[in-house]
Amino acid sequence: MSARRVPPAIVLVRPSEPGNVGAAARAMANMGLSELVLVEPAAQIDRVARAFAVGAGDLLDRARRCPSLDEALAPFGRIVATTSSRSRALREAPIPPRDLAARLAADPPGTRTAIVFGPEASGLDNEELARASPLVRIPAAPRQPTLNLGQAVLVVAYELYVARPRAGGGEAEEPPAPAAEVEALFAHLDRVLAEIGFARDDTAAGVVRDLRRLAARAAPTRREVSILRGICRRVLGELGRRSAAPGGPAGR
Amino acid sequence: MSARRVPPAIVLVRPSEPGNVGAAARAMANMGLSELVLVEPAAQIDRVARAFAVGAGDLLDRARRCPSLDEALAPFGRIVATTSSRSRALREAPIPPRDLAARLAADPPGTRTAIVFGPEASGLDNEELARASPLVRIPAAPRQPTLNLGQAVLVVAYELYVARPRAGGGEAEEPPAPAAEVEALFAHLDRVLAEIGFARDDTAAGVVRDLRRLAARAAPTRREVSILRGICRRVLGELGRRSAAPGGPAGR
Repeated sequence: MSARRVPPAIVLVRPSEPGNVGAAARAMANMGLSELVLVEPAAQIDRVARAFAVGAGDLLDRARRCPSLDEALAPFGRIVATTSSRSRALREAPIPPRDLAARLAADPPGTRTAIVFGPEASGLDNEELARASPLVRIPAAPRQPTLNLGQAVLVVAYELYVARPRAGGGEAEEPPAPAAEVEALFAHLDRVLAEIGFARDDTAAGVVRDLRRLAARAAPTRREVSILRGICRRVLGELGRRSAAPGGPAGR
Repeated sequence: MSARRVPPAIVLVRPSEPGNVGAAARAMANMGLSELVLVEPAAQIDRVARAFAVGAGDLLDRARRCPSLDEALAPFGRIVATTSSRSRALREAPIPPRDLAARLAADPPGTRTAIVFGPEASGLDNEELARASPLVRIPAAPRQPTLNLGQAVLVVAYELYVARPRAGGGEAEEPPAPAAEVEALFAHLDRVLAEIGFARDDTAAGVVRDLRRLAARAAPTRREVSILRGICRRVLGELGRRSAAPGGPAGR
């Protein structure tokens, strides 16, 4: 018996149009997805949203609404983000949706995956993108590269549906830590950076963003996160000890 | 030099919703198509249609309206039709949209192609389908197999766009750091672990091995390695400073 793959959740960040939320829900149902998360402030699930959702009303009813992206992503070990940006400032080159299924298949079974879509007008910002790996960009004509939100959800969900694994084995590998634990690691790291004066550097924000991207790409396991937090904790402890009980090198 | 392929036209048969016509136009523009044909009675190109067309208004303006399917199809040498029907009465088994590009590529260059979509509620009838080959069916979840019209246009246009022949070229992504640099990072980390007493733990060897595996998986770039080494260096510096110049918290 092989471990079940969990279908990915779709996370819509601050979607402003009820019709788009409904269209996204319908596209999800068309492609066999069912978990929808809305990051506030999100469009209301009103008559318009329901009209667009045709047959996927239950999916709207069960949508989880979260006050922040942080909270929305907390349960997920693999965070994928979509962007239409062609900026060279992206730390990681986006992959096409066709390649996403193969990437996700490399994660251990049991990995919970979120695919994040930004607001209609602006898309995800660099901070938000830094939390995710891989980034996905839908190929589109350079003259008109920006898809409607519901359309973008459809293309990504369609590619995953077409590539859906038929029955098959998988190795027992440890799934990535949930995002909440990775966040706790970064909170710990922030304290270290503050203690060593790094946080005062002009580059500090960029540095943390780069490390977030690295973490998103690596999708560390619980054990790995716990090791890294352990190191941060010991560094902080030792820095504190040397400040408090001055004189001489560390010893015990 | 190879002969230019003419991009296919999209033919919407009796579409009833202006929003769907607009969404189809936007999807076409997203995927580099520009020729839209509407078979009467077709939805008006009104404010709603234009709102959905975002940036593809010109495509709506240039849409050809035809009193019959016959007239609409007259200029085309290759007629493709879409259906969500799974009926065995179909004369020809539908192919998935992914296979369409290869089929069309077998036609002589210069062939004018129409891709026909039926009305929202009923789809194309058997008479209409009989005029076309190949038939295309979009893979979808059996529980909810019917896509919105604009969404269906998008999937087919997307597949053709992705399959378009193109000049090579690739994205410039930053390559992973050479192993020597990752080793230097671990040498740095070893000194930190020694300073904070971690290295004396029984688990230290296992911990370092786990972190090496994490690094191997993440394949960090030069910049990421350099950031992490910078943090190690500052941690070591701060630990040394607090030992050497005792008393009081870090400051500068």
